Amino acid sequence: MKDLLSMSQLTNEMIYDLLDRTSRMKKGEIPSLKGMFAANLFLEPSTRTKQSFYVAEKRLQMEVLDVEAEQSSLLKGETLYDSVRTLEALGADVLTIRQSERGALDDIAAKTGASIINAGDGTGEHPTQSLLDLYTIYEEFGTFQGITVTIAGDIKHSRVARSNAYALKQLGAQVQFSAPDQWRETNGSYVSMDEAVENSDVVMLLRIQKERHEDESCTDSYLETYGLTKHRANLMKPGAIIMHPAPVNRGVEIDSVLVECERSRIFEQMNNGVYMRMAIIQTLMEGKYYENHKRIQMERGLCATV
Amino acid sequence: MKDLLSMSQLTNEMIYDLLDRTSRMKKGEIPSLKGMFAANLFLEPSTRTKQSFYVAEKRLQMEVLDVEAEQSSLLKGETLYDSVRTLEALGADVLTIRQSERGALDDIAAKTGASIINAGDGTGEHPTQSLLDLYTIYEEFGTFQGITVTIAGDIKHSRVARSNAYALKQLGAQVQFSAPDQWRETNGSYVSMDEAVENSDVVMLLRIQKERHEDESCTDSYLETYGLTKHRANLMKPGAIIMHPAPVNRGVEIDSVLVECERSRIFEQMNNGVYMRMAIIQTLMEGKYYENHKRIQMERGLCATV
Amino acid sequence: MKDLLSMSQLTNEMIYDLLDRTSRMKKGEIPSLKGMFAANLFLEPSTRTKQSFYVAEKRLQMEVLDVEAEQSSLLKGETLYDSVRTLEALGADVLTIRQSERGALDDIAAKTGASIINAGDGTGEHPTQSLLDLYTIYEEFGTFQGITVTIAGDIKHSRVARSNAYALKQLGAQVQFSAPDQWRETNGSYVSMDEAVENSDVVMLLRIQKERHEDESCTDSYLETYGLTKHRANLMKPGAIIMHPAPVNRGVEIDSVLVECERSRIFEQMNNGVYMRMAIIQTLMEGKYYENHKRIQMERGLCATV
Repeated sequence: MKDLLSMSQLTNEMIYDLLDRTSRMKKGEIPSLKGMFAANLFLEPSTRTKQSFYVAEKRLQMEVLDVEAEQSSLLKGETLYDSVRTLEALGADVLTIRQSERGALDDIAAKTGASIINAGDGTGEHPTQSLLDLYTIYEEFGTFQGITVTIAGDIKHSRVARSNAYALKQLGAQVQFSAPDQWRETNGSYVSMDEAVENSDVVMLLRIQKERHEDESCTDSYLETYGLTKHRANLMKPGAIIMHPAPVNRGVEIDSVLVECERSRIFEQMNNGVYMRMAIIQTLMEGKYYENHKRIQMERGLCATV
Repeated sequence: MKDLLSMSQLTNEMIYDLLDRTSRMKKGEIPSLKGMFAANLFLEPSTRTKQSFYVAEKRLQMEVLDVEAEQSSLLKGETLYDSVRTLEALGADVLTIRQSERGALDDIAAKTGASIINAGDGTGEHPTQSLLDLYTIYEEFGTFQGITVTIAGDIKHSRVARSNAYALKQLGAQVQFSAPDQWRETNGSYVSMDEAVENSDVVMLLRIQKERHEDESCTDSYLETYGLTKHRANLMKPGAIIMHPAPVNRGVEIDSVLVECERSRIFEQMNNGVYMRMAIIQTLMEGKYYENHKRIQMERGLCATV
Repeated sequence: MKDLLSMSQLTNEMIYDLLDRTSRMKKGEIPSLKGMFAANLFLEPSTRTKQSFYVAEKRLQMEVLDVEAEQSSLLKGETLYDSVRTLEALGADVLTIRQSERGALDDIAAKTGASIINAGDGTGEHPTQSLLDLYTIYEEFGTFQGITVTIAGDIKHSRVARSNAYALKQLGAQVQFSAPDQWRETNGSYVSMDEAVENSDVVMLLRIQKERHEDESCTDSYLETYGLTKHRANLMKPGAIIMHPAPVNRGVEIDSVLVECERSRIFEQMNNGVYMRMAIIQTLMEGKYYENHKRIQMERGLCATV
């Protein structure tokens, strides 16, 4: 595996391998990638994803080159491809990229020797977030078999929700959704939040985008009707957990007092995210990377049109 | 000591311990905090304080996560508390925070396992600046007993000035002030700059805020009436020194030619600041930190309202 | 050599020494400058130069302090000199500075103990770019004797072009230019691009500034008349190479398909830039630096006007 661009490229076996590596990292078995360079190219705002990658890379003893959108030559009209190739020429072994165009990294990854990690491509994929969510569930229950997961919020506009759902089903979990009518997909099993808390092992809340929340149907009563209230949290199954990708809108999708309650794994997800990203980078830096790198260097000699 | 939030939390003994550690750091006895993570969260503009912490942390071999205000999720409406807890979840052992609300860190520090350093809270405290000022005086004279310090400038709006004054008196120094009428406090001993230079061992100038300087009483003649001119510098006692927290307004609170003269410790203060911050971080990372961390983790399980 | 401010300060012998060091760095003979601090002060936008220095400094195991214009105290009215002296007081051993005033670093370097590298001073010099260009030619041909170099683009407004031309001639190369009439200097040998490709070993394209390109004489036909088209590239001598400082305006000064063709050294130049900057920093950190540092410290005691 040279790149991580989409959850759909991962088999169950590859996912379990990443879960296992994450677990070992978290126990302190941390390999050294000293001498290797990571470049983080975040062209869209992000705080915790970027910070999480930075910490992961540093814990692996890599050097890190942070590239901000506003600093970037992209402003001078350079293409993303040229920026990526430049960072590779400067010595980057792996590039973590957040940008707004869905699927834009596929072509670039195919023409680049360095590994590319998709850290969110607009409304598209965000595979490292999906994987840290999977790890958090797996760490809690030790299995996906027989686990019921409710994903709650704007399902329609969240591909992360859908790729999480897809991966969870492939791994053996039951997945259901909870959402206001206008945020539902045509397929999938939908339940009310009252139903959800009764049968779920995991209540996975999505962040409500403020602009949507205010302009569309949602009002101050969103929490009461669709969110996780204290009352509903008390009705959750023994051992059931609460997840949220953060940042949390306290009092909108979740009651503020629940954010750090015993059931909440919200900050644990962030903690797990660092280890999962370490596991991903370690995997990408192994083996086939080097062969691939040589192949591409050779092909470039042929003056291919770009 | 888990946090450094205010000068008022420090006893004379604790201050002397920090002075001693700073001195040893400056002589090259530098401990390694390799593997520990520092996060610098500067939500208000700062250059040298932020840089000073960065250099201090790197000299201690820590990894450093720099968080800019404009990058921060705080813009998405996340609270400062959530940002701090996120950085802790990502692995931060110590957080250095500059923000505008006086006293805002007290509650946060009480609920956070990581150490918190107050790097300036609006018009409130800036304890690491106070401590580096104390070190610079102590390094020069070897004692605070019998040392006369004049603090000159906008005393009324500077709590740093007042906490410096408090600490200096506790340590045995004589403190007097020099300021235009409208910048005076009701208590404290005030002298003219002409008087100040004659009896002071230390003339500690404050930076004039440009907006105040222009709008209020101060005119082009500020330097002549209230500042440190070449003429006044020549009248200073043998061995007396000039201090200033920088950045300097050359020609306003001090004549430009004095900034790097023999009496000036202005750039030496910056140099000392790195070592003092190393001493502070070393102190916070010791001992009780770990116990506290465990306690808070346990308390969180109890679903406390936040 | 304490500073690198201009190509004109370098003898042929010094240039060959840097080329040789670069070559050894590229082969993996990388010295350690562990414990030394580099500060990068970029007051004008730059992406790749800044990134290149950062990577170079990290590969030498230095700590790096990145200073952004918008973060800088310069906004508070501090002079560049005070900023430099502050970074030195914080512990910087070498400062890499990009700023807009031609020649502004000469005085500052003379009063500063730390080494200063000019990373571009407006329309002035950019010696590290010149040196990496020289290295790329030398690496390709093993000599400058008998090599014909065409520099193409806005010669009139590019001092980099002129200092490259000067250095190349001193080293034994033949230099000619190609440019629209309004971008020519009064002296120098000018040829058309059709002539240039026939007799050149190196076609060194300059970046067209977009604003000039649009407002002045250049039209959509710039590529056809003055740029490097596919047709012209096919007429180049065997073994001849294409160079460009990047970022490239694809389709303006060069046809997009040529950017990564076999003749192109554009990304190789970026790669070489890292090693050349390592060589430069290594050179500056040697020997005379320390003596100079002591001398300046002594002189400062004399209260010199600044």
